[in-house]
Amino acid sequence: MTVNTLLPRIRFLQTPTSDAWVEQSLAHMDTILLDHSHCERKAAGVALNIMFRYPAETKLVRQLTTIAQEELEHFDQVNQIMADRGIPMAPLQPPPYGAALNKQIRRYEPERRLDTLLVSGLIEARSHERLGLLGEHCPDPELAAFYRSLMASEARHYGVYWVLADEAYDRAIVMQRLEELAAVESEILATLHPQPRVHS
Amino acid sequence: MTVNTLLPRIRFLQTPTSDAWVEQSLAHMDTILLDHSHCERKAAGVALNIMFRYPAETKLVRQLTTIAQEELEHFDQVNQIMADRGIPMAPLQPPPYGAALNKQIRRYEPERRLDTLLVSGLIEARSHERLGLLGEHCPDPELAAFYRSLMASEARHYGVYWVLADEAYDRAIVMQRLEELAAVESEILATLHPQPRVHS
Ligand SMILES: [Fe+2]
Ligand SMILES: [Fe+2]
Ligand SMILES: [Fe+2]
Ligand SMILES: [Fe+2]
Repeated sequence: MTVNTLLPRIRFLQTPTSDAWVEQSLAHMDTILLDHSHCERKAAGVALNIMFRYPAETKLVRQLTTIAQEELEHFDQVNQIMADRGIPMAPLQPPPYGAALNKQIRRYEPERRLDTLLVSGLIEARSHERLGLLGEHCPDPELAAFYRSLMASEARHYGVYWVLADEAYDRAIVMQRLEELAAVESEILATLHPQPRVHS
Repeated sequence: MTVNTLLPRIRFLQTPTSDAWVEQSLAHMDTILLDHSHCERKAAGVALNIMFRYPAETKLVRQLTTIAQEELEHFDQVNQIMADRGIPMAPLQPPPYGAALNKQIRRYEPERRLDTLLVSGLIEARSHERLGLLGEHCPDPELAAFYRSLMASEARHYGVYWVLADEAYDRAIVMQRLEELAAVESEILATLHPQPRVHS
């Protein structure tokens, strides 16, 4: 099957998601829903943490407030779907993806803020791509419709992270760093993680 | 002036806020607005952190999701008011209140969860009381109306924290621990902090 029609619209990502990920996910949708719930809560947490670190950056704070609100709404929507289906909420071992990307963030300013925004944007872009694939290929119509309903705001999210980086740093520096981080991001996903996850 | 008509409705609190706090705050409303903005962001962060710690507690997670959403909405409202008035967002040294209360939280379960819920409820109750005082006494009609508009959801917040504690622990244990923590909370505020803050 040729699954990926989204990538041309997602310039953040260097390599499209494999068919193997789609097959793994569709075979374990209950686990994907649970992991997706964790992802939405973490996405809200990331936006909030960045706001805590840069409380005087008015535009950044206002835009990340909106992202955090939308992620919490998505989180509640996934949790509602899980409750309707009798899938219990539970802890879940995350895949190596998030920690491996966080390791790329330099720990000194102003590089730290640039890396944080670009890594957050990459994760949003990948989530957007993968949830879009579920929206296209999931045979359960309710789930497919749910995933499609998330597309617009997830696309906005990586756009916001991109613009916040692009406005605060020299374009050439942003592009070069994005290319480095996007290469790492694609490399992490090159081997399918054995456990089904949004970012396996 | 006799400022406090709210306390009978707020059983969490042992001692009413002093007239001195009201006078200090009304004399420094720009600083109070800025500190209030930080308080709303922190309140969202607290709700989210508790959700992160107890991800399998369905009811707790759903109710704290709502609280986090409402706190982010309040945060955005305060920030809008600050922007309209040309008050810049900025870091602000917090008063000792939050750290002193956090020190009371025992670091082992199940006591840790009980203490976390009760401390969060106490902070919500105190915020409710003090923002209510600003709603009664602030001579600026826009600000007074804003503070009054927050009352219903802030009252709901400490109610939620109370119910989450009360449902998971023996009533006698909850009442005794609440009494201990409320005594500490009132004690911290017995001396007015020299810098104007929501919890000075
Ligand atoms: Fe989301
Ligand atoms: Fe997102
Ligand atoms: Fe609030
Ligand atoms: Fe609150």
